[in-house]
Amino acid sequence: MSFVIQILPLLESVSDCPDRMQLSLTQDPAHIGYFVPWVKLSDFLRAGGEVTIGLVDTYAFLINYKHPWEEVQHRTTFYRHLITTVLTVMGLPMSKIKFEQESNHQGTPRYNVDLWKFCTLVSQADIRATGAEVGAATLLSPLLTPIVQELMVEYFQADVEIGGKDQRGIYGLGEQFLPLLGYRPPAHLMTELLPSLVGGKMSSSDSSNSKIMFLDNAQTVREKISRGSCHPGVVEANGILPILKHVLMPISELRWNNQSHSPQKSVSNGDYDLNEHNGSADVKWPFCAKDAPWGTLFSIPVRNVGCECKVYTHYQSYEAIENDYKEKLITPETLKDAVASALNELLDPVRQAYEGNEEWREADRMGYPEDWI
Amino acid sequence: MSFVIQILPLLESVSDCPDRMQLSLTQDPAHIGYFVPWVKLSDFLRAGGEVTIGLVDTYAFLINYKHPWEEVQHRTTFYRHLITTVLTVMGLPMSKIKFEQESNHQGTPRYNVDLWKFCTLVSQADIRATGAEVGAATLLSPLLTPIVQELMVEYFQADVEIGGKDQRGIYGLGEQFLPLLGYRPPAHLMTELLPSLVGGKMSSSDSSNSKIMFLDNAQTVREKISRGSCHPGVVEANGILPILKHVLMPISELRWNNQSHSPQKSVSNGDYDLNEHNGSADVKWPFCAKDAPWGTLFSIPVRNVGCECKVYTHYQSYEAIENDYKEKLITPETLKDAVASALNELLDPVRQAYEGNEEWREADRMGYPEDWI
Repeated sequence: MSFVIQILPLLESVSDCPDRMQLSLTQDPAHIGYFVPWVKLSDFLRAGGEVTIGLVDTYAFLINYKHPWEEVQHRTTFYRHLITTVLTVMGLPMSKIKFEQESNHQGTPRYNVDLWKFCTLVSQADIRATGAEVGAATLLSPLLTPIVQELMVEYFQADVEIGGKDQRGIYGLGEQFLPLLGYRPPAHLMTELLPSLVGGKMSSSDSSNSKIMFLDNAQTVREKISRGSCHPGVVEANGILPILKHVLMPISELRWNNQSHSPQKSVSNGDYDLNEHNGSADVKWPFCAKDAPWGTLFSIPVRNVGCECKVYTHYQSYEAIENDYKEKLITPETLKDAVASALNELLDPVRQAYEGNEEWREADRMGYPEDWI
Repeated sequence: MSFVIQILPLLESVSDCPDRMQLSLTQDPAHIGYFVPWVKLSDFLRAGGEVTIGLVDTYAFLINYKHPWEEVQHRTTFYRHLITTVLTVMGLPMSKIKFEQESNHQGTPRYNVDLWKFCTLVSQADIRATGAEVGAATLLSPLLTPIVQELMVEYFQADVEIGGKDQRGIYGLGEQFLPLLGYRPPAHLMTELLPSLVGGKMSSSDSSNSKIMFLDNAQTVREKISRGSCHPGVVEANGILPILKHVLMPISELRWNNQSHSPQKSVSNGDYDLNEHNGSADVKWPFCAKDAPWGTLFSIPVRNVGCECKVYTHYQSYEAIENDYKEKLITPETLKDAVASALNELLDPVRQAYEGNEEWREADRMGYPEDWI
């Protein structure tokens, strides 16, 4: 897996020992693209760091502007529950992860003066250059979002800020201007953006068919996957392989590591689909079959073997799967089935937690009163 | 005098009894154009109101952006001393006037959320339309100034906001958007802008020759007045008459009113120039000669009467002076002399107070370290 390698050099480039990081959040109900930066948290925790997840409610309000402040507060609650559940399901130790809410750090004289100072330093063009959404905005509030985001890094006392590659412009703004306020800018880690199921960028504003949401039910997940772009033997513009590469394989590796390399697997009947682990939220297994050899991170069933028994091909790396797919040793249907099964196993405890958590459901109802399709 | 008439109808239009007002301040060392709104305070106080003078340090910092926050704080101190002195010299009761500093009302969670909300309501175009300086700005901070100004009206709990006519766009912004935040916009009073000594608008950025500063010394005042635009018999584009109309006559009327219509005048030797009242800051007399008839607000010396005695023409209204000037019964030189004398009498106690006030001079030195010409 290349993720640790990508991250560690950056960590080492930070002069002091980094012990906090900020994760950028958006304002809409999260799609599974957010697994990508969250997977990175595991590398960071393994390196001995602590993670602050900043719930950036002000940013969300300013960029969003269609929804009242009170609604955004409900979304913050929604996110807190969602992230806690998802990270737990991923197998991350919540004891090393804390939440901080952006607006709790604002509304102080110090913050106020810092905000004014930042605004006197940057040009309107500097701000517009940070990203397309801000650049095209006609309302005033989006112009403030890059500033509140980068300023908050100081208030969260973050050494490292992690987010998608679409944050590049905003991170550059912080690197340029925070020193002028007397603050040290954080190191920046930028993760891949998970592409859309049908190819291209998976953005918050895409139609729901292009992305899988954390709370989609199992059938919806299967249907969206089945409609994904996935030509036989073709890796480019494939909507399914990136989920395997950026979400499932890193999480499987994380879970495997958490088991102290135990060869024991969870699956009692030779399958690993979602029905196996219902109700056992503390059991987090790699996405592989029971009899998989040591080091297996993903097992793909072999179809049409002419008997009732389950036969798998076992993989220790994404690259090996991609190679077999290129060779057409794995069909699109087989790949989609395996990915949908693993995703549903991953998401099922999230759905269950949601159903069992009245506060979370209330936050959803109050925070997202409209249809978000 | 028409000033009371201009103001009272507006006061009556306010549904609740207005008891506070906000005076817009700029960030540079004040020129005597600021007498115009300050004169209005007297009308307001006479109507039973109380006045809050908002020292809008944040606004000054955001629009100014060349000068550090700490420097702006020194300017705030400078202004507090200046205004206190000038209003006292004008004869206003300081017991009814209080100062509030803008930044003291910020840096609270309530303010912070109000600021964000305001920013989500207005378009960048709304902001640019409020005035030329903001409209042409390339830095980000000037875009915030109309918002912080109008939002602060609520935090100062002002019923009436008074400022120059150049504030029209900003006031309109408040009237449009404060109700969307749940706040009642204040009534707005807009005063005339004192034109430049050499014609045209007297702005903060004009060269010093076009405006008289509160702390100009007596000789400088005379020299600037002597260079002012003032053609014989011509009222249009005259740089001297507006000082008489908008500053000296209203202040003279204010002082006359303060004396309970006493016929006694202060001048012992039949003159009223600046040397007469040195050191007697509590004596504030109309700008008229000792033997002026009851109701005189301004006395102009008659030149070349062929004797050593002083002979005056006495006026009860600006209009009468303007009329005589049109008829060339008053020469430019005579007008300039009379205006310079009255101005110097008005400003001399201000200069003296400045010289005797170490904190004020320190604030000047720290707040305006550069040459402001």
